[in-house]
Amino acid sequence: MNAPVPSHVLPVYEPRPLPPAMRSALQQRFGARCSTAAAVREQHGRDESPYPVTPPEAVVFCESTDEVAAVVRLAAEHGVPVIPYGTGSSLEGHLLAVQGGISIDVAGMTRIVHLHPEDLTVTVQAGVTREQLNREIKDTGLFFPIDPGANASLGGMAATRASGTNAVRYGTMRENVLGLTVVTASGEVIRTGTRAKKSSAGYDLTRLFVGSEGTLGVITEVTLKLYPLPEAVSAAICHFPTIAGAVNATIQTIQLGVPIARCELLDVNAVRMVNAQSGLGLRESPMLLMEFHGSDASVKEQAETVQAIASELGGEDFAWATTPEERTRLWTARHKAYFAGMQANPGCRSVTTDTCVPISRLAEIIEGSVADADATGLPYYIVGHVGDGNFHLAYLVKDGDAAQRALAEGASQRMVQRALALEGTCTGEHGIGLHKMGFLVDEAGAGTVELMRQVKRALDPKNIMNPGKIFVL
Amino acid sequence: MNAPVPSHVLPVYEPRPLPPAMRSALQQRFGARCSTAAAVREQHGRDESPYPVTPPEAVVFCESTDEVAAVVRLAAEHGVPVIPYGTGSSLEGHLLAVQGGISIDVAGMTRIVHLHPEDLTVTVQAGVTREQLNREIKDTGLFFPIDPGANASLGGMAATRASGTNAVRYGTMRENVLGLTVVTASGEVIRTGTRAKKSSAGYDLTRLFVGSEGTLGVITEVTLKLYPLPEAVSAAICHFPTIAGAVNATIQTIQLGVPIARCELLDVNAVRMVNAQSGLGLRESPMLLMEFHGSDASVKEQAETVQAIASELGGEDFAWATTPEERTRLWTARHKAYFAGMQANPGCRSVTTDTCVPISRLAEIIEGSVADADATGLPYYIVGHVGDGNFHLAYLVKDGDAAQRALAEGASQRMVQRALALEGTCTGEHGIGLHKMGFLVDEAGAGTVELMRQVKRALDPKNIMNPGKIFVL
Repeated sequence: MNAPVPSHVLPVYEPRPLPPAMRSALQQRFGARCSTAAAVREQHGRDESPYPVTPPEAVVFCESTDEVAAVVRLAAEHGVPVIPYGTGSSLEGHLLAVQGGISIDVAGMTRIVHLHPEDLTVTVQAGVTREQLNREIKDTGLFFPIDPGANASLGGMAATRASGTNAVRYGTMRENVLGLTVVTASGEVIRTGTRAKKSSAGYDLTRLFVGSEGTLGVITEVTLKLYPLPEAVSAAICHFPTIAGAVNATIQTIQLGVPIARCELLDVNAVRMVNAQSGLGLRESPMLLMEFHGSDASVKEQAETVQAIASELGGEDFAWATTPEERTRLWTARHKAYFAGMQANPGCRSVTTDTCVPISRLAEIIEGSVADADATGLPYYIVGHVGDGNFHLAYLVKDGDAAQRALAEGASQRMVQRALALEGTCTGEHGIGLHKMGFLVDEAGAGTVELMRQVKRALDPKNIMNPGKIFVL
Repeated sequence: MNAPVPSHVLPVYEPRPLPPAMRSALQQRFGARCSTAAAVREQHGRDESPYPVTPPEAVVFCESTDEVAAVVRLAAEHGVPVIPYGTGSSLEGHLLAVQGGISIDVAGMTRIVHLHPEDLTVTVQAGVTREQLNREIKDTGLFFPIDPGANASLGGMAATRASGTNAVRYGTMRENVLGLTVVTASGEVIRTGTRAKKSSAGYDLTRLFVGSEGTLGVITEVTLKLYPLPEAVSAAICHFPTIAGAVNATIQTIQLGVPIARCELLDVNAVRMVNAQSGLGLRESPMLLMEFHGSDASVKEQAETVQAIASELGGEDFAWATTPEERTRLWTARHKAYFAGMQANPGCRSVTTDTCVPISRLAEIIEGSVADADATGLPYYIVGHVGDGNFHLAYLVKDGDAAQRALAEGASQRMVQRALALEGTCTGEHGIGLHKMGFLVDEAGAGTVELMRQVKRALDPKNIMNPGKIFVL
């Protein structure tokens, strides 16, 4: 492991002030939609990561690809950083203006550009959130499954290669983005991909921009795959005497090839927090929250298989949520775990891990990480998309308490080392941002990261696209 | 459409001769495994495309990543092109030494490096073919589904983003490669990806190399997803009075979300050729060849749904192949369609199209393309992975007959224009190679192709990695 500086400690950046000429050009073009108000800048200089607020010098609220391109052309001319901003739900510091510059807020780009139910595709502007999309396509009998919990923007989800609870069956943004409209670092508008389901036409620029965290261009439109709403949906919870039982039931379910749609772990701490916030009255033990999609027969078959596996591993109280209302109540509680954690620990911020390992190694990493977390004495909880081998151990640390932060970051670093030794990754779905730059080198190796840098330098020679994220040039 | 020069006409390249110092360095290191024999060079200077043989100056038979790296380091030092060579089954001219240089034959790299059945992953050397892989993992109860027909090498399949008959259910190489070992243009060995199922750790270099056709580096190892062998498999054929009926049955099957595993169209010409070669005695009409994977109940359910759809559209003789032997006979016949076409037309070569369109547009493009093909008067046949919106119309043209070739290429160009107008792609799975460079610009736009060039220049500044393919620098 090569981590001379703790991964979460930020390098010192050269400030790049906003030239007055650019400021007035922006104000002339965007009027009140270009803001330098302190409150607006501060809101755009933070996210859900534990870093101090680092505001941009101005925020431009864009409503079209052309407007984004106009901002980027000015930024390129003046060598000023630009940071795309959707809903602000990043956990890794993606949105902080560590080198100054402009925040491009695309939350107003909420148009469904083209809906093609006959092809199971839709093109949306980058500011459309996953919940808005699913509301707007409800009548088509289709849905978009990727669900990271937060009601994130689809542009942001593409930029971080997000996934979440349904990924075990439907894949991540990597598998579900067909094409993009991107404003490049020179302010040019390009399209990647087509609406065809597959293609071998040249370099996969779509996948290059998916997960590039705003460092190669600004995603302004996203073409997505949709899926027919399953004929039958059934959710179940199952309690286990130990976390190992829940994890082993997951491992066997995946190894057997059961096409489970969601398979979420909550440790006893998460269950307690969720109970406190949502009043669900769940039994306070480790549990799996599962969902099955398919025909009536197939859902029944899947559930029976998993129930048999769970029973053998000590699973109890296999309980069904058959109505949509019950299911919504359960999943809403799961999605609010993050806020429940905050609420249970006032004045705290979350240091959230995101390791993902090959499925057979999941028990080993969770066991080691729980022991380590217990030893810190910090409040923590675990939730996870365990069907993918991905889980989040979130430490609640007092805002500004350097000692607590260091304890949590140390444990996080050891967890990443465990994940890498098990041939996994430091981040399943949250991205590198500021927080995991050191881990990226440990994971990918210096040569591979240098190749990423070569791509960055080629596509963004002035280093204006969300600079200082993923790696420092 | 911007195609001043017909797409298939090759530009004139600067020759880049092999310096004697490099030749002797190769011979010293590789001995008899570095060959300059005319027969060996000619075998490596052709593929299944209709271009004239264009041999490399030498062929090096490599047996390890380190050996590939040694060749590339020499090539980088001397500015000499290198062309990775697997089984030679490219249809688009990928393997031709249009700028001279060295062919790196990896067919001897046939080792299964790591098999992890407990994680549903395997790492293989680039020369392992898909049939070898499936033979070697048979005892694990797992299989690798991607099946382009030819018994291609997995390195080559990754390099062209191949797919084939099972892609409608299991995805393409894009979705099924977890990581790669790559020798970069400087001869450095890097790893991309991990064995975790998903990751958000930096740029998706895995997907950048998948489909890069040897132009960014040489893939030497591939880590793949595996799948549990389905509990039940059932294949069926269904005849239709018209090709439109077969296509519309496919469209409705996909729109309904039936998780069909294979859905292949054969036009009447393809059926005739297959009958002549394999003696299957199939009724000579357009047909679908389908396969269903799942539990017993789910396979039954899927098949009933598709049978109902097909019947409404004039489908007849829905016939089942329930034993593995019957299924193998059918699929072998399908896979041999290409060679059956050659056999039925001695002295001909195949000009094969590869368009892929959004599923609802499939009937329209096939209808137009059939009319166009009939008007050429050339022998042709259609096979296709129609569940993905992808099909191949193959023209059989007399080798060296420029007039026939021009007729076929003209029709191919019109078909691509149709596909692009329908928001599809010029190549679903074969790649750009030499043959579709003009189409790539029409499809992606000059700005997007220029961005690909920027990536190429950054990663291969001396333009030694399979130069002259995908685009000309």
